[in-house]
Amino acid sequence: MKLFSSVNDVPDINELVKEALHLKQFPYAYKDLGENKTMALVFLNPSLRTRMSTQKAALNLGMNVMVLNMDKEGWALELRDNVIMNGNTVEHIREAAAVMGQYADIIGVRSFPGLKDRKEDYSEMIFNKFVQFCGVPVVSLESATRHPLQSLADLVTIEELKTRSKPKVVLTWAPHIKPLPQAVPNSFSEWMCRADVDFTITHPKGYELSTDFTKGAKITNNQDEALADADFIYVKNWSAYEPYGKIFPGNEDWMLTNEKLKITNSAKIMHCLPVRRNLELSDEILDGESSIVVHEAANRVWAAQAVLKRMLESLS
Amino acid sequence: MKLFSSVNDVPDINELVKEALHLKQFPYAYKDLGENKTMALVFLNPSLRTRMSTQKAALNLGMNVMVLNMDKEGWALELRDNVIMNGNTVEHIREAAAVMGQYADIIGVRSFPGLKDRKEDYSEMIFNKFVQFCGVPVVSLESATRHPLQSLADLVTIEELKTRSKPKVVLTWAPHIKPLPQAVPNSFSEWMCRADVDFTITHPKGYELSTDFTKGAKITNNQDEALADADFIYVKNWSAYEPYGKIFPGNEDWMLTNEKLKITNSAKIMHCLPVRRNLELSDEILDGESSIVVHEAANRVWAAQAVLKRMLESLS
Amino acid sequence: MKLFSSVNDVPDINELVKEALHLKQFPYAYKDLGENKTMALVFLNPSLRTRMSTQKAALNLGMNVMVLNMDKEGWALELRDNVIMNGNTVEHIREAAAVMGQYADIIGVRSFPGLKDRKEDYSEMIFNKFVQFCGVPVVSLESATRHPLQSLADLVTIEELKTRSKPKVVLTWAPHIKPLPQAVPNSFSEWMCRADVDFTITHPKGYELSTDFTKGAKITNNQDEALADADFIYVKNWSAYEPYGKIFPGNEDWMLTNEKLKITNSAKIMHCLPVRRNLELSDEILDGESSIVVHEAANRVWAAQAVLKRMLESLS
Repeated sequence: MKLFSSVNDVPDINELVKEALHLKQFPYAYKDLGENKTMALVFLNPSLRTRMSTQKAALNLGMNVMVLNMDKEGWALELRDNVIMNGNTVEHIREAAAVMGQYADIIGVRSFPGLKDRKEDYSEMIFNKFVQFCGVPVVSLESATRHPLQSLADLVTIEELKTRSKPKVVLTWAPHIKPLPQAVPNSFSEWMCRADVDFTITHPKGYELSTDFTKGAKITNNQDEALADADFIYVKNWSAYEPYGKIFPGNEDWMLTNEKLKITNSAKIMHCLPVRRNLELSDEILDGESSIVVHEAANRVWAAQAVLKRMLESLS
Repeated sequence: MKLFSSVNDVPDINELVKEALHLKQFPYAYKDLGENKTMALVFLNPSLRTRMSTQKAALNLGMNVMVLNMDKEGWALELRDNVIMNGNTVEHIREAAAVMGQYADIIGVRSFPGLKDRKEDYSEMIFNKFVQFCGVPVVSLESATRHPLQSLADLVTIEELKTRSKPKVVLTWAPHIKPLPQAVPNSFSEWMCRADVDFTITHPKGYELSTDFTKGAKITNNQDEALADADFIYVKNWSAYEPYGKIFPGNEDWMLTNEKLKITNSAKIMHCLPVRRNLELSDEILDGESSIVVHEAANRVWAAQAVLKRMLESLS
Repeated sequence: MKLFSSVNDVPDINELVKEALHLKQFPYAYKDLGENKTMALVFLNPSLRTRMSTQKAALNLGMNVMVLNMDKEGWALELRDNVIMNGNTVEHIREAAAVMGQYADIIGVRSFPGLKDRKEDYSEMIFNKFVQFCGVPVVSLESATRHPLQSLADLVTIEELKTRSKPKVVLTWAPHIKPLPQAVPNSFSEWMCRADVDFTITHPKGYELSTDFTKGAKITNNQDEALADADFIYVKNWSAYEPYGKIFPGNEDWMLTNEKLKITNSAKIMHCLPVRRNLELSDEILDGESSIVVHEAANRVWAAQAVLKRMLESLS
């Protein structure tokens, strides 16, 4: 594997899930694989889970890890081509990525969208330029429109905890006060559409995701209808795709409560975290038996480790 | 050992001091103990000595180390329960701590007090919530009211350099321009009250520490009286406990000078660092023979290593 | 080797270049050398290449690495002696350096010049105080007036890619919008004056470097004359030495283009990076065949590794 940026980079997602669960059982079985190999984790935005879990995954495989908070420790990056760099940017991504590729065997990159210019965000300019210029395998640590390590961990979690062979999985929009990227719901949706699950998306009118990510999903604006008989409920806020990055007032009643869960099949509640309590998700759910958000976060290690293992295997 | 937050977590402080001195002699003798174990160092505030010495201690024990500057690299933490998170905080400490506990075998946490609300600071809310929710052993890297790794290193230093079996140890208040926490003096005091030393605290009127930390100490407002015949003098500024976090004008003459040391038993001068020269402590002392502040800082490694060794031993 | 701050710390630069090229071939051959040794990388300013390449070099030698962004993670440093620290600085460099020397076997320090006070910058106060007080070997990660790891990597690159035994090497000033330090050109010049090359410096009038660094170099204000028959062209902006830190309007035509290269001996183009495209150096050159800037950056690892290897050998 030379690139992990979306579900499309994975020939067989079930095999990759199996690999992750195997690594969960034998975390240090492949420590020789990463000997003298270096992982660079490049952050253009904050990160807790991705930062720690990917670092841990690389260490489990015997790699060295270098973390670079590009926004704080490095130089302001120029992303556009053919410009005279006489402004605030100090280094072009062409050089920055190429140089990092000289120091690292695998690079992970996190870059959030600006949520201003949809075409630019959905072109994945920053992430793709890293891939184009660095010359080594690249793992997305969440890009403008996708968060594949999260989605893989989500699928691993569902596979681990499902109680019927084809569980009903629901992605439900949740309230928030700020416009958030569509990366997590896009990504979760495209993975679920490829997985052996019965997948439904529910959101208020206006929050339709790009159809590029939702082919095969049932979509409804009726949350109750969606939740009925659900085995897993994935809670997440996102801003509108059209008009891009906007949020609409209201919809506070979309926050999940125990009352709402009554019609589910004792559904387990998932969230990628960080979660705003009592805005996106209620205390009673997060502190109750149905929440599996911490278990899900723990699986981030094995998802990352499965991907890195594949990449290491492809290096030599 | 599952928790290192105060002297009360240590059944036998003399044994722990011995362990630290043993590790100073054989730093790498227990490198197998930390194999495949991960230490997470979580900083909500700046750190130099604690950051480097604890990292080094963990590496000496063969652990992997992940450093997280929570305030800069992660998400703004919500600490209060039962609130609607519709403000600036992005993640609740309940999730953050629980997730970190999934990625680390031992967690170190630094969180300073706000010095506004005494009840809140002295409840050790932040530190205790980390302990409560992370599910793994926790080491204080300085909390609102204590700095036990510092105090252990201080005791190790006294044990190493004392010239009589029960040395006279004096904690003296020193001038400053800003209100500082009581964590270091509280902690030093509660350790000295448990150690085999003759312990005196001296400070201007108004700077009384909480009596919870000073039981057994002699306390005087007469600095000269305190310094007489002292073997070790621990210099430190702190703000008032009542009214909480306040400082009073004057008292500049409390800064130690060589002149003041004449009545001591060739006292050695200690300070936890960082120290403001010529405000808290004079150049002539810091650059002279009596200062052992760098030696003391060096012992931070062995103090941390002794604690981490105990925790690693308790893991399996 | 106990100090690497300038070319004057290297008895035989050709031997050191050979060592670097040897390490490039056998990166992990000396991994035992750094066992249980710790490298501290202390940054008072941003860094990408130096941060990653020196870290990688240390890891290749089996060392542990601790990175400290002093400006963000530690305490504000006081540099002046004999002052009452009642302002914004929290820790004196005397204590900070001494303490770091207790935790690290080798320290790397980056500190840029202020470009306000030439005497202060050229006294290398910050760097020299680190050296003076830390008590362990110190590597410059770029100081106020020199960048020796860069220059060594540059010489390694020239040695690798030269097509005649004594190549013509030209250092040419390039346009910029901000006043930049003289560290890189100073350093490159003093290394080239010691190397077996035919060395010319060219710049507009007013940008004369300190003659302390240029003894033996040909110097001309005629760029074309300098470029004629050149094998390597080192492109770099710098501000004036006199009046110190100033820049003069104009000189935009000093930016290198393919047209200008026609009179060279198929010259290879070097730059220390970061480079501002189409201001310092044109897209057509950076994206063309003549640019070796990424190759040059890659050699930073082997330059650093050669220096660290020498230091490790001198430790025991």
